Amino acid sequence: MAVNLAPPDPSSLHPISGVELGVGMAGIKKPGRKDLLVMTLAPGASVAGVFTRNRFCAAPVLLCKTNIRNAVRALIVNTGNANAGTGADGLKRAGEVCAALARQLGCRADQILPFSTGVIMEPLPAERIVAALPSLEDCDWAGAAEAIMTTDTVAKAVSRRVGLGKGEARVTGIAKGAGMIRPDMATMLGFIATDARVARKDLTGILKRAADASFNCITVDGDTSTNDSLILVATGRGPAATKKDLVVLEGAITGVARDLAQAIVRDAEGATKFVTVRVERGGSVAECRRVAYAIAHSPLVKTAFFASDPNLGRILAAIGYAGVPLDTGKVDLHIDDVPVVKRGGRNPAYVEAQALKAMKKPEFTVRAVLNRGKAEATVWTCDFSFDYVKINAEYRT
Amino acid sequence: MAVNLAPPDPSSLHPISGVELGVGMAGIKKPGRKDLLVMTLAPGASVAGVFTRNRFCAAPVLLCKTNIRNAVRALIVNTGNANAGTGADGLKRAGEVCAALARQLGCRADQILPFSTGVIMEPLPAERIVAALPSLEDCDWAGAAEAIMTTDTVAKAVSRRVGLGKGEARVTGIAKGAGMIRPDMATMLGFIATDARVARKDLTGILKRAADASFNCITVDGDTSTNDSLILVATGRGPAATKKDLVVLEGAITGVARDLAQAIVRDAEGATKFVTVRVERGGSVAECRRVAYAIAHSPLVKTAFFASDPNLGRILAAIGYAGVPLDTGKVDLHIDDVPVVKRGGRNPAYVEAQALKAMKKPEFTVRAVLNRGKAEATVWTCDFSFDYVKINAEYRT
Repeated sequence: MAVNLAPPDPSSLHPISGVELGVGMAGIKKPGRKDLLVMTLAPGASVAGVFTRNRFCAAPVLLCKTNIRNAVRALIVNTGNANAGTGADGLKRAGEVCAALARQLGCRADQILPFSTGVIMEPLPAERIVAALPSLEDCDWAGAAEAIMTTDTVAKAVSRRVGLGKGEARVTGIAKGAGMIRPDMATMLGFIATDARVARKDLTGILKRAADASFNCITVDGDTSTNDSLILVATGRGPAATKKDLVVLEGAITGVARDLAQAIVRDAEGATKFVTVRVERGGSVAECRRVAYAIAHSPLVKTAFFASDPNLGRILAAIGYAGVPLDTGKVDLHIDDVPVVKRGGRNPAYVEAQALKAMKKPEFTVRAVLNRGKAEATVWTCDFSFDYVKINAEYRT
Repeated sequence: MAVNLAPPDPSSLHPISGVELGVGMAGIKKPGRKDLLVMTLAPGASVAGVFTRNRFCAAPVLLCKTNIRNAVRALIVNTGNANAGTGADGLKRAGEVCAALARQLGCRADQILPFSTGVIMEPLPAERIVAALPSLEDCDWAGAAEAIMTTDTVAKAVSRRVGLGKGEARVTGIAKGAGMIRPDMATMLGFIATDARVARKDLTGILKRAADASFNCITVDGDTSTNDSLILVATGRGPAATKKDLVVLEGAITGVARDLAQAIVRDAEGATKFVTVRVERGGSVAECRRVAYAIAHSPLVKTAFFASDPNLGRILAAIGYAGVPLDTGKVDLHIDDVPVVKRGGRNPAYVEAQALKAMKKPEFTVRAVLNRGKAEATVWTCDFSFDYVKINAEYRT
């Protein structure tokens, strides 16, 4: 059950001139379920990408990393099968899919970016994907978001308009979760497009910074996937972005990325709570992130979130084992606006009912103040529920 | 439900001359439940200890670290309250408990080692512990093991006899789990005693190595507790250990420590499987441990263990994000004797029913062979079940 997350309103999602969307059914997932998305780009589009750092990165990720250097003409996404841990055979099958789509579009196979998500270590049924290509149906961004869902309960799509010097640009993005989420340089799968004209070099910088402020700040279970990919496309069919415009555009792209990243956490497997973990006054951003992730990854903290149980000692314990040489006597802790720990010990004025009230809400903030510097970091996460275990114990059955 | 773990047979536990055991009810836990253990040592005993590295280490741990330098006369353990995250007030209360026991025994307060385990950040009811001291009842090691249980379902006690040059020595130990377990230099609480005569300096070395080969190789949920302590006592009432004897004795002590550590995993909160994760042919022990812990901590891997689901991709993904610069094309993976992955891809001869059969057993081994060096490491862990969430969501309610 997604936390405060509704399916996107299709009318709120701006089409992006220069991106054509088509969905299909390749029969990888259950019959009747869409499992194939093709995004065709107008010639001249700039494309940037960030990818998983998992050493076992999937075959499509390997191909993407090479093909993204070329003039990309299309992206193809299948769900139901990750084509990861499949070795040379996996690369061959991903290549067959690219070749078939290239023939259909009249371009080279190395101008296609392939993406796969689903079960790991199963052979990709490339022939079924190839067979489904001629009968793709046109769709809008809402339909595209729906086609890439796996265990997501809600499609994820976000759109913004932004005024540039030479006119209004549009930014629309889609993403999918919903488990094996601790992106490292990228998310599970995310695709963001703008009609602004931006050079590839600038686009790459924008995407890296946007990813660091969005997908790289979320965690569901600490598992970095083999297939994480985030792609940013600028079609150039809308206004050209001046140097000054780039700052404004980056703000809009980062906003779309952050909304998508948070949507993944809100719709995380089994999640009943959306929790912002904020670490302040640390010695460096790196150590703030370390403490934030220790809190956000602790199964004991996450089950306490699930139970709305202000078992604050578990949070202190996680701060304590994060590996940061902090003075515990200086640490303050807040649940929303409730100061629960002062100088490393229970705040004498704290009454448990206060934290309980905050934690019973579907969204709240845990704020740890280390009082040893000026850096800060934020991580968004969720709780660990019965349903997380149920979903992941029964994923393939 | 503990995995292949029965309560200890009291007749199998050798008494240790020079250690007197007494249990009591201080009313910290539910009425009628024993929550207090005092271990009185004969004068002249050597004592060594290893303690949690959590920065938020508990008040009793702080006192232990100081008092262990003195001629220790007694250990006192309470359950139901960890006296952690309690600041200066917590130290004061732990000191009151030590002072009261010292008066009763006719020694100094700084000759007492205090231990607490239970809820974090609640004030320790020292006055109730002090009030219970005069009415302690003598008990054996089985009774002592029972008195220190918290969410454990089975008491944990192990005993061995070992022939030294000047006669037979005895080693008996007890421990408690059962969550917040990823010891770092120590376990939750473990107490091992021998009647052999060993100098403190030698005892400290033995304990550190024994801890590294036992309690520091287990993980339940990756949470390093604030109170982890492991104590080794040598009363000297039995045979004196020569230099040559020390090796034999260390073997017995390590064996007892390993049995206790594994018992904690077998009885971990909600555990239905006991899993040995072995990483071989790595570049260093540190990187082997890193990979082993990545597997052992992954919630996705642990829920697959729970489901007996050979979702091997999740194990490969964990190996891939462990942060070791390995060549995935060289990695082999075995579930018990079933070679499931060869050279980074699915073994063509592998049939899923083979791994399924192995994983349905209450105990099995995951063996990852990195093929990049000669080092190896083993970690013992368990699965993540509905009951883990249930126990930890309802812990305080």
